[in-house]
Amino acid sequence: YESVIRCKAAVAWEFNQPLVIEEVEVAPPQEKEIRIKIVATGVCQSDLYFLCKCLNQTMFPAVFGHEAAGVVESIGPGVTEFQPGDTVIPLFMPQCRECRLCKSPKTNLCVNGCPSSSRSRISCRGRKLLQFLGTSSFSEFTVVKEISVAKIDPAAPLHKVCLIGCAICTGYGAAVNTAKVEAGSSCAVFGLGAVGLAAVMGCRAAAASRIIAVDINPEKFEKAKVLGATDVVNPNDHSRPIQQVIQEMTSGGVDFSFECIGNVEVMRSALESCAAGWGVSVIAGWTDMQNFSAPPIQLMTGRKWTGTLFGGFKGKDGVAQMVRAYLDRKLMVDEFITHNLRLDQVNEAVELMKNGRCVRAVLSVAPQ
Amino acid sequence: YESVIRCKAAVAWEFNQPLVIEEVEVAPPQEKEIRIKIVATGVCQSDLYFLCKCLNQTMFPAVFGHEAAGVVESIGPGVTEFQPGDTVIPLFMPQCRECRLCKSPKTNLCVNGCPSSSRSRISCRGRKLLQFLGTSSFSEFTVVKEISVAKIDPAAPLHKVCLIGCAICTGYGAAVNTAKVEAGSSCAVFGLGAVGLAAVMGCRAAAASRIIAVDINPEKFEKAKVLGATDVVNPNDHSRPIQQVIQEMTSGGVDFSFECIGNVEVMRSALESCAAGWGVSVIAGWTDMQNFSAPPIQLMTGRKWTGTLFGGFKGKDGVAQMVRAYLDRKLMVDEFITHNLRLDQVNEAVELMKNGRCVRAVLSVAPQ
Repeated sequence: YESVIRCKAAVAWEFNQPLVIEEVEVAPPQEKEIRIKIVATGVCQSDLYFLCKCLNQTMFPAVFGHEAAGVVESIGPGVTEFQPGDTVIPLFMPQCRECRLCKSPKTNLCVNGCPSSSRSRISCRGRKLLQFLGTSSFSEFTVVKEISVAKIDPAAPLHKVCLIGCAICTGYGAAVNTAKVEAGSSCAVFGLGAVGLAAVMGCRAAAASRIIAVDINPEKFEKAKVLGATDVVNPNDHSRPIQQVIQEMTSGGVDFSFECIGNVEVMRSALESCAAGWGVSVIAGWTDMQNFSAPPIQLMTGRKWTGTLFGGFKGKDGVAQMVRAYLDRKLMVDEFITHNLRLDQVNEAVELMKNGRCVRAVLSVAPQ
Repeated sequence: YESVIRCKAAVAWEFNQPLVIEEVEVAPPQEKEIRIKIVATGVCQSDLYFLCKCLNQTMFPAVFGHEAAGVVESIGPGVTEFQPGDTVIPLFMPQCRECRLCKSPKTNLCVNGCPSSSRSRISCRGRKLLQFLGTSSFSEFTVVKEISVAKIDPAAPLHKVCLIGCAICTGYGAAVNTAKVEAGSSCAVFGLGAVGLAAVMGCRAAAASRIIAVDINPEKFEKAKVLGATDVVNPNDHSRPIQQVIQEMTSGGVDFSFECIGNVEVMRSALESCAAGWGVSVIAGWTDMQNFSAPPIQLMTGRKWTGTLFGGFKGKDGVAQMVRAYLDRKLMVDEFITHNLRLDQVNEAVELMKNGRCVRAVLSVAPQ
């Protein structure tokens, strides 16, 4: 009975063009694959980046969306971890649990890498649609690999916890896993989108005593304070470079800084806002269009520069754990959701994101 | 009786000109200063960098030299830690033991910074000579601050342990203190001057199982093997980028890499030679002429980039400890000395260094 499903999806036919709601065909799951009914999905800056910013414009036609929650509809041969009806969050970084990377406590990478966008089970009028990051949550149904799915507590409200599939883990984990923020420390977070706000929350969870939230859009500051910021700074309010402002505010720089935008100039500012001797700067914002640069003395005086994908969380373990933390009221998620829309309003969500007018828009996809 | 001392020094009158042996006047030590008879000094690439490479050509006239050993001749008011006759190594990075940096186990910086070159007790024909890094060991006598001197075991042969004052601590400490090389790990060291060779030695001391020594001058390889290299690689023997060669040699990159040249392109190669997930790359080579750059993905996939000054050793403590290790035959130093010359042969030593024809030339300065 595992036949092709016909359903709605938002299709990106071309670079930098509005998505189009189409009827698509979703093939049955193959060996070690799972077909998921997507209940809710966030719209992330990474979707926008590949949809309308990056230089690699060969990723079309495609179905975007990678920050989602849903229910297993059917499983392919060899799948042992899941059954139809399980509530799940798809992962853009797999956890096979068997490779040398998965077995190392030092990293959340997996030798299986980010799923290839070219393996696709979704097509439209006979044309294969690429599955962005192997997920494609802007579709009522999608097929993902078993290694790229986290099983979560069935009590979790999927319209909320979908954000744990990307932004919240990325920012929160950048603080608690990658930087290992220490109690009593000082932190600066650059960029107060969902990732940056989650980093602020992570710094607070780690009991940082000073959390400086930095953005050129002052509308972001109120939410940053809700999530734990002790100070807010708008670089446009200062004629000096922002790193100098932060160095002065903290008598020599913060212990930890986070770049949550994907801007190479800000990456350097974040590094240079750190304290000489021990400051750690984490890149959590994505870009592959430019290289960062900085003077060697910045590192030679003891700063450490690193970065993170998915906040250092091993996908299956980390997502399940973060969902439990949310259900235990130890993690804020609702506060990130500024708009609730339907899948057919996806272009409206994209515009809100482009214009910095929302933190997260969550799209209802298929009825649960 | 603490009067001005007239003695010989090698004076750098102008940028990129040979040093001139002159009779200089060395003033008595002032408050918390020490006058030292320099017995032996190394010639370091940092001397050459500021003498004839860097863009800041305002550092003249000056007395260079900062990798030395000697004997305390006299002490200024308020000095409590030293007495005339103590054997010492001057420090280009002070350790005051009292500031917030000295009290932190995380760094070897001191709020007193690198000593200002403008405080000078040395003059020649009525003209003040800048004291390079506050040390000026190309002089039979010099005056340094008490916080910038390490007392060492009087049994130490000063013509050997002078190298502990810079290159050996910088490279060895980059491995054991800054990178914290782990037993069984893989390492790559770029640049096999004295700092790089000391990094190789540090990797071996930390029980790394694979130590790849990289240089475009194959004459350096024999010494690298003596100090612990398991593999040697000449980038000129390969048409592919050296980071790709090392990634292939190690099935995914080394755990630790070290840049020991001061070349921003090599800094990037060293970073990209590291393993995704956990690789740590340490910049130990100095330059302030260019910025390094790299694609953010290199850090976002879990590499860590940092750097070191003096190998993370707190000067007074680290130098004394390294001298003891040498006397206990736990540290090689003699192997770094390829030439023994006199102070009046300093220009010969400079030429040997410029042409990569020596590891270290040690100059005899004043008779012990």
